[in-house]
Amino acid sequence: MILDEDRFFDPDPAIRRIARELYDAVKGLPLVSPHGHVDPAIFADNRPFRDPVELIIIPDHYVFRMLYSQGMSLESLGIRTRDGSPVETDHRKIWQIFGDHYYLFAGTPTGVWLNHELSEVFGVREKLCGENAGDIYDRIQQKLKTPDYLPRAMFEQFNIEVLTTTDAAADTLENHKRIRESGWPGNIIPCFRPDSVVDMSHPEWKSNIDELSGASGIEIDTYKSYIAALEQRREFFKSMGAVSTDQGVAVPYTHELTRSEAESIFERALRGKATADDAASFTAHMLMEMARMSIDDGLVVQIHPGSFRNHNRIVFEKFGRDMGADIPVRTEYTRNLHELMNKYGNDRRLTLIVFTLDESTYSRELAPLAGHYPALRLGPPWWFHDSIEGMSRFRLAVTETASIYNTVGFNDDTRAFPSIPARHDLSRRVDSNFLAGLVARHIIDMNDARTMSRALAYDLARESYKLA
Amino acid sequence: MILDEDRFFDPDPAIRRIARELYDAVKGLPLVSPHGHVDPAIFADNRPFRDPVELIIIPDHYVFRMLYSQGMSLESLGIRTRDGSPVETDHRKIWQIFGDHYYLFAGTPTGVWLNHELSEVFGVREKLCGENAGDIYDRIQQKLKTPDYLPRAMFEQFNIEVLTTTDAAADTLENHKRIRESGWPGNIIPCFRPDSVVDMSHPEWKSNIDELSGASGIEIDTYKSYIAALEQRREFFKSMGAVSTDQGVAVPYTHELTRSEAESIFERALRGKATADDAASFTAHMLMEMARMSIDDGLVVQIHPGSFRNHNRIVFEKFGRDMGADIPVRTEYTRNLHELMNKYGNDRRLTLIVFTLDESTYSRELAPLAGHYPALRLGPPWWFHDSIEGMSRFRLAVTETASIYNTVGFNDDTRAFPSIPARHDLSRRVDSNFLAGLVARHIIDMNDARTMSRALAYDLARESYKLA
Amino acid sequence: MILDEDRFFDPDPAIRRIARELYDAVKGLPLVSPHGHVDPAIFADNRPFRDPVELIIIPDHYVFRMLYSQGMSLESLGIRTRDGSPVETDHRKIWQIFGDHYYLFAGTPTGVWLNHELSEVFGVREKLCGENAGDIYDRIQQKLKTPDYLPRAMFEQFNIEVLTTTDAAADTLENHKRIRESGWPGNIIPCFRPDSVVDMSHPEWKSNIDELSGASGIEIDTYKSYIAALEQRREFFKSMGAVSTDQGVAVPYTHELTRSEAESIFERALRGKATADDAASFTAHMLMEMARMSIDDGLVVQIHPGSFRNHNRIVFEKFGRDMGADIPVRTEYTRNLHELMNKYGNDRRLTLIVFTLDESTYSRELAPLAGHYPALRLGPPWWFHDSIEGMSRFRLAVTETASIYNTVGFNDDTRAFPSIPARHDLSRRVDSNFLAGLVARHIIDMNDARTMSRALAYDLARESYKLA
Repeated sequence: MILDEDRFFDPDPAIRRIARELYDAVKGLPLVSPHGHVDPAIFADNRPFRDPVELIIIPDHYVFRMLYSQGMSLESLGIRTRDGSPVETDHRKIWQIFGDHYYLFAGTPTGVWLNHELSEVFGVREKLCGENAGDIYDRIQQKLKTPDYLPRAMFEQFNIEVLTTTDAAADTLENHKRIRESGWPGNIIPCFRPDSVVDMSHPEWKSNIDELSGASGIEIDTYKSYIAALEQRREFFKSMGAVSTDQGVAVPYTHELTRSEAESIFERALRGKATADDAASFTAHMLMEMARMSIDDGLVVQIHPGSFRNHNRIVFEKFGRDMGADIPVRTEYTRNLHELMNKYGNDRRLTLIVFTLDESTYSRELAPLAGHYPALRLGPPWWFHDSIEGMSRFRLAVTETASIYNTVGFNDDTRAFPSIPARHDLSRRVDSNFLAGLVARHIIDMNDARTMSRALAYDLARESYKLA
Repeated sequence: MILDEDRFFDPDPAIRRIARELYDAVKGLPLVSPHGHVDPAIFADNRPFRDPVELIIIPDHYVFRMLYSQGMSLESLGIRTRDGSPVETDHRKIWQIFGDHYYLFAGTPTGVWLNHELSEVFGVREKLCGENAGDIYDRIQQKLKTPDYLPRAMFEQFNIEVLTTTDAAADTLENHKRIRESGWPGNIIPCFRPDSVVDMSHPEWKSNIDELSGASGIEIDTYKSYIAALEQRREFFKSMGAVSTDQGVAVPYTHELTRSEAESIFERALRGKATADDAASFTAHMLMEMARMSIDDGLVVQIHPGSFRNHNRIVFEKFGRDMGADIPVRTEYTRNLHELMNKYGNDRRLTLIVFTLDESTYSRELAPLAGHYPALRLGPPWWFHDSIEGMSRFRLAVTETASIYNTVGFNDDTRAFPSIPARHDLSRRVDSNFLAGLVARHIIDMNDARTMSRALAYDLARESYKLA
Repeated sequence: MILDEDRFFDPDPAIRRIARELYDAVKGLPLVSPHGHVDPAIFADNRPFRDPVELIIIPDHYVFRMLYSQGMSLESLGIRTRDGSPVETDHRKIWQIFGDHYYLFAGTPTGVWLNHELSEVFGVREKLCGENAGDIYDRIQQKLKTPDYLPRAMFEQFNIEVLTTTDAAADTLENHKRIRESGWPGNIIPCFRPDSVVDMSHPEWKSNIDELSGASGIEIDTYKSYIAALEQRREFFKSMGAVSTDQGVAVPYTHELTRSEAESIFERALRGKATADDAASFTAHMLMEMARMSIDDGLVVQIHPGSFRNHNRIVFEKFGRDMGADIPVRTEYTRNLHELMNKYGNDRRLTLIVFTLDESTYSRELAPLAGHYPALRLGPPWWFHDSIEGMSRFRLAVTETASIYNTVGFNDDTRAFPSIPARHDLSRRVDSNFLAGLVARHIIDMNDARTMSRALAYDLARESYKLA
């Protein structure tokens, strides 16, 4: 398993030659990671990663959901239970299961990322399988003990220009502080994610509000003080380098409540009396509010809608969230974003980036919206669509109506730190290949393609997220 | 019209070479047909097929709906009316219409299957057209009189390892018995399809229940006896070789009723008082029940949702069902399957295969569900999507998230017996070409591809349907 | 920027060779334009176009919406305000903005059309950019003053066989009359579009009805007289050459009201008391009525559903309709067209052409419907999907189920007159390439392909719209 130099490029010689040329010009650019879920503690601590399973399997639901779907229990893969009931602790044994079933990842982005990671990060040049699993485990394990494989060393080695984490509204950003105070120059910035204090249907909403009170130093007993606390936290996040916010919502419905409606609902919620309708209205209202605040403070707004979280109750109760059981649902944007777009979509001070898990909206709703409203930009293919075919479909569906310039480059959006170079490399290859297809069909010329290739690999992410 | 050896393969030389190599290794494997609609009587009787029209046009709504859409009446094509009012009986004349309009099938899977069937089954090497229609009719007619073209001889010639029929819950499986008792070794097995006794909105539901009583020997006067009768029939089907059940539903909504709710609804239905809501609830409940029974008896569950049956009332009233007027509707899986997945989706004893006519669900809902729940597998592209482009889109949309190993290989799903080899051949070619595209782009290697190719052509169907 | 001879063809040599051969045989065929929005006044007047901005930018929301999405104001692009408040009048300055941002159109159909138009219509062989914008403005400006660039001369030069405009029900077709009376043989015909007198929710519905009274000479004070007036206008449009009608609806819901229901709703509407439900019911009813009338008078019915018009209220209030802010919504056909298809879909005297902005309906609903009902045909990819990728996806999604023969060839559907040759050329190239892909994969043979290529480029449009 030597990685082929032309991987992911169309085999047609004309396309391949152009793709390679475009890719060669961008492959060395620094990695801009404006949205993701890597834990900042690993850079604050800068301790060695424990072992290959702790690094590659346990934190990555992309990996273990596939094994689970084929009959392996999560316990046998070492996934920790909420109640501490025992799971497999022999990590060599878990790695062996992984090796035995590595063939399941053939043709998946996870497989492609893992191949890259094993080969380019850990120098493992043979394909993982049952026979060599133990040996490969040992070789990776040994490397993890060396200074070159400490988190900060890897960050530098990966050529990451900026890495954004995702942080709750009440987060004290202790780890970000420790990183800054350490004098290490790695640029790791937070992103303000208020979901847990916006979504009133969340069972722990009230205690999250209490945490927000604590973090902001503002006693939250009214809607007004709630808004003040959020504004205070945004200011604090900005002071810690944040350039963006993010909201995950079931439905991207936007609607502004009157002041008194918002106050009543908020008070009902404080008394534990908010209904499901209240929660939905309040979320719709807070999408409006976050856009309003962003016009004031300049933070870029991100919206990630349309995931049915924790679809599998048994898995959720035993193991918690982010266990590979979040399933997309059909999502509507044209009507849902109507009020938001009408109030703020014409305002060029705002940058609002929407994502989707519903590919049928690419050409029908999202590209036409982004191809009109000055404030709107389209986030890259998200989650299940962050893949060779998924990215190709996105570009083919979106570019003709929105152009690449109403999109924002790539997000790796990962909690699997060592997969970051693999993900950016794949994205740069797929975009180069897409552009090569346009050049080979004489839709654009090579000059256009070079500019667009750099935009997709680097410039658009920096500019859209105000990182330039 | 000599069939090209490289048909359906990408013209790119790199892809084509690999596709051909993969295809060559699987083209000779026996045909596994785990879901279809061929009438078992033809093998029980083993009488000569009457003529080309009776064999190729009249039973195949794929063929006559296209002619109908272009202005030919169904009467002129010999389709029998329900009331016996006269239709064209001169089959040479019907075949002439077919020949005159054969160009309509250019670029359709029906056209491709027909070309294969005419060439490989009947030795007709020229393309059918108005000029040669009469001559070709005669040549096929002559062959049909010879022993090589008796149904059982064709079955053997086709190299069919197993052929599954679809049979009503009250079916006595008389034809299956006759086949077994004849000593002929052709492996033809039933599939248990209880739609007509589940769907209370069906005008003949009550008389279907009576038939079920008769067939099971259990008097059905309560919900309890109804369930007992179904369990009895499943046992009987199993004894006749069945490995699976199938349900066709408008919406794949699943919801378990309480015992007393189920009893009340069932009693209302027996009294002819069930409402449309009752019928929908009961269907949702019976999807749960069928999964429960399958965990007990091991039958594989199939669900075929999302067809608006008999959309054309005039055609339905005159000619009946399966006349090419079933039109797909948008279908939702994430929420509809939620209860079923939560109750049984984690149970590895269950295999539940879902199909769709709504391609927008491939990447959005079905692949993420199948890439997580151990019990769930995705059926192959169904009906309108059982085609070169349809299969290619399915693999491209589904594989990255679900892998091929959460899919179940190919179903020919046909009532057109002589088209079976053409359909499997097309499927094997398209899957080989899909895999070749992955190899040529260095996404998988040739070893992976060989294993996957065999899995798609043979192993997955055998294993998923417990036929191995 | 010399336009490449092989543009838009797949780079694979086998496909490209076949595509070129197919294209060469159809590229010279006259242009049939059975649906569009060019203003007939330009041919009645036959005055020189004022300048490049007036010709290319101001009438074309495809062009200015992209510039708007990237932060240019519509005022700065010279788009006229409803209240006459001032906008940029220096057209050289506007053209400079256009040149500076021409890179935004790379990879879009607008970019491709503009390249063709500049090169083939105006002889501008270099790519437009900031540096050469002023010079190119002058060169085009000069040409526009010459007789060869008068509207009628361009029409002839473009080899347009027939050009259909879109005209309100009350339109007197004065310009069409003037064209006819001028003796100029250019074939420009109207299309009957009654939206403004059908949609009761339109704020000016009542005054539109008054205009209809005036135009028809029938006093509209009852539903009966309303229908009579519409029938009168259709007759008049037919006498002026019309072969078709068109309706734009939010939802393609069809449902026939009883006579008395229709009368009551209509009377309520005349009194200004119609509700939103009334308006929706009446539109559903009028889709049925228009089909009924078409069976009588032979006009082809077109339905364009699924656009959320004037999504951006600020832009609408300031600039009016057709400003690039119409955004598609999810659209359902199987259930919505049920009543219409059941009443008229089996009637071969009717031709009913449906369009969609929701690509997820291509394979799920539209192709199965068109592949069954004799009256139904599918319109070409519309609006955002009138593009290289959009057309390719349409053919790939639709052909296998509906065949090309249940589609109607190409519509340019444009108000940008000088872009017409570019649009037809693109369509002919993309269809040739699609067919070449089928030939190269041995799905169809070269004889089929030649016939199909001509059908898509010319015959189907002529026959479907009864222009032959």
